[in-house]
Amino acid sequence: MSDTATLSRLFATIEPDLEIVDREFQRRATSGLEILNAAAAHAMSSPGKRLRTALTLISGKLFTYRFDKLLPLSIAFEMTHLATLVHDDIIDQATTRRGIPTVNARYGEPVSILLGDYLFARTAGLIADVQDFRIDRLFSETVATVCEGTIIELLSARRMDTSEERYLERVNRKTACLIAACCKGGATVGGASDEQIELMNDYGVSLGIAFQIIDDVLDYTGSDQSIGKPAGNDLRQGVVTLPLIYALRNEHNGRIEQVQRLLASEAPGEDDVAAVVRWVNATPAIQESLEVAREYAMRAKSLLARFPSSSDRATLEEVVDFVLARSH
Amino acid sequence: MSDTATLSRLFATIEPDLEIVDREFQRRATSGLEILNAAAAHAMSSPGKRLRTALTLISGKLFTYRFDKLLPLSIAFEMTHLATLVHDDIIDQATTRRGIPTVNARYGEPVSILLGDYLFARTAGLIADVQDFRIDRLFSETVATVCEGTIIELLSARRMDTSEERYLERVNRKTACLIAACCKGGATVGGASDEQIELMNDYGVSLGIAFQIIDDVLDYTGSDQSIGKPAGNDLRQGVVTLPLIYALRNEHNGRIEQVQRLLASEAPGEDDVAAVVRWVNATPAIQESLEVAREYAMRAKSLLARFPSSSDRATLEEVVDFVLARSH
Repeated sequence: MSDTATLSRLFATIEPDLEIVDREFQRRATSGLEILNAAAAHAMSSPGKRLRTALTLISGKLFTYRFDKLLPLSIAFEMTHLATLVHDDIIDQATTRRGIPTVNARYGEPVSILLGDYLFARTAGLIADVQDFRIDRLFSETVATVCEGTIIELLSARRMDTSEERYLERVNRKTACLIAACCKGGATVGGASDEQIELMNDYGVSLGIAFQIIDDVLDYTGSDQSIGKPAGNDLRQGVVTLPLIYALRNEHNGRIEQVQRLLASEAPGEDDVAAVVRWVNATPAIQESLEVAREYAMRAKSLLARFPSSSDRATLEEVVDFVLARSH
Repeated sequence: MSDTATLSRLFATIEPDLEIVDREFQRRATSGLEILNAAAAHAMSSPGKRLRTALTLISGKLFTYRFDKLLPLSIAFEMTHLATLVHDDIIDQATTRRGIPTVNARYGEPVSILLGDYLFARTAGLIADVQDFRIDRLFSETVATVCEGTIIELLSARRMDTSEERYLERVNRKTACLIAACCKGGATVGGASDEQIELMNDYGVSLGIAFQIIDDVLDYTGSDQSIGKPAGNDLRQGVVTLPLIYALRNEHNGRIEQVQRLLASEAPGEDDVAAVVRWVNATPAIQESLEVAREYAMRAKSLLARFPSSSDRATLEEVVDFVLARSH
């Protein structure tokens, strides 16, 4: 079953509301300018998993389901995610994402910069509609942290001495932070207590880290089809992730020089990339990385256990299983 | 007297508060990451006129002076302005601004993109501190409109057929909109009535258009020193402004081809730029442009006349005079 199909089944109880979010997202992203709309439509055309939207809604539903507030909130998070993808693709000079040309490849950098800014601007109006100043602050902190995470990624790019700790800090800020904000934000407007809000935040952090580690593993083990981009993409971009960190840890022979050369190269040869991908797959690094992802997944589930049993709690547990299952 | 000195005299009554805004701006723009701080400090190092901050404070002072709300509001506007400048310089591939290297020239495009995003993120937290959802909406609409204005500028770049109407639409969205938001926002938190808020918005729009027309005239009449960048910069960037639109309107000889060639060129020759600048200065276009600026300035003043006479109203009138005086 495809990722999207699995998630659809998982989120069946909120499916009608997910569709409302989708429609309203389109409306709120619409500008008076044709080129912005075309670029936004292009950015939205790759089939997203709506994971952030669903997490926001279910996290609210675990308490009191205030769809009037969850609607603008979930759109704001999904729109922030889209804006960061658009700007990331400029930063990475990426030409394709999930098999289709990136906005910068199709419309050029200036339009991409402005589309990202435009989407950021629109999120401010959505946040206003939530009418909860805690959400304004959460939102500001989250986007600022994501920017810092991207800076950390830039600074650690091409650096073989990237530590596991630095990797986790980057993943925490760049990916887990926004996923956690969805869970925390949903719980906040759902009327959860401060303690419950923090539990939901911690659930999101652990889920988000597990999610990103699996993503980084798939970049070594996956094929074009399953991840929508060529395997070894991180290596090609000079991004050092957990599988490589672990593989290098146990290695003392000529590989180190090969990896160093590859990371230093702006346009590494495809043979070199394939060779390093094969080597990493032959080490215990993949299994070790998956083990860390599983630990974070377990932690996410144990945090959920602090809430009374319910079908919504079960859904959040299944999201954890889904994230782990992507590695198969 | 320099622009900065004139404004300092004008804003003497709020000088201590302007200094608090400056200090708090630094604090709110600070990140845990050294490189973001260095880039932000660099972006802030060119001596800004603090026009947006002062307009926000005085617009509030015209009603009830709530500095607790005006402080985060004015920082949010000034920070938005800074973020758009940082992204604009990437879009324009500008290497200097006010005589110092741009952030993109000094720190590279990726850091510049992320610095702009980071500053946008920080504004959300500032807007939350204002605790007025009308301000959230104003802010969202303003930033979205500024993005659209920049897109319009992109689309009309290098186009000789840019009409006066299209030019004014672009100026309205790209520059006047944010200046108007400062006036409108200040009045809003000052407890002005809906009608008064709209009057202040319209004052800001007229002031902002006059400001930008003068800026565009100075790009033809000014020297390096007075505007901090080489004269003819707009021409060099392919940006068609009012003086050129007016000059072309009355022209039917070989100049049209020369301008067309210059606008079409990615790297126009300095002799060509200088020749077109001289030609525009020799036509009535400069005086005609200044006349339009004066009309908007008059309109701004006539809107102020709807408020009772006061020292704050007088200051806002003097801001209009200051904007016009920059053309001498």
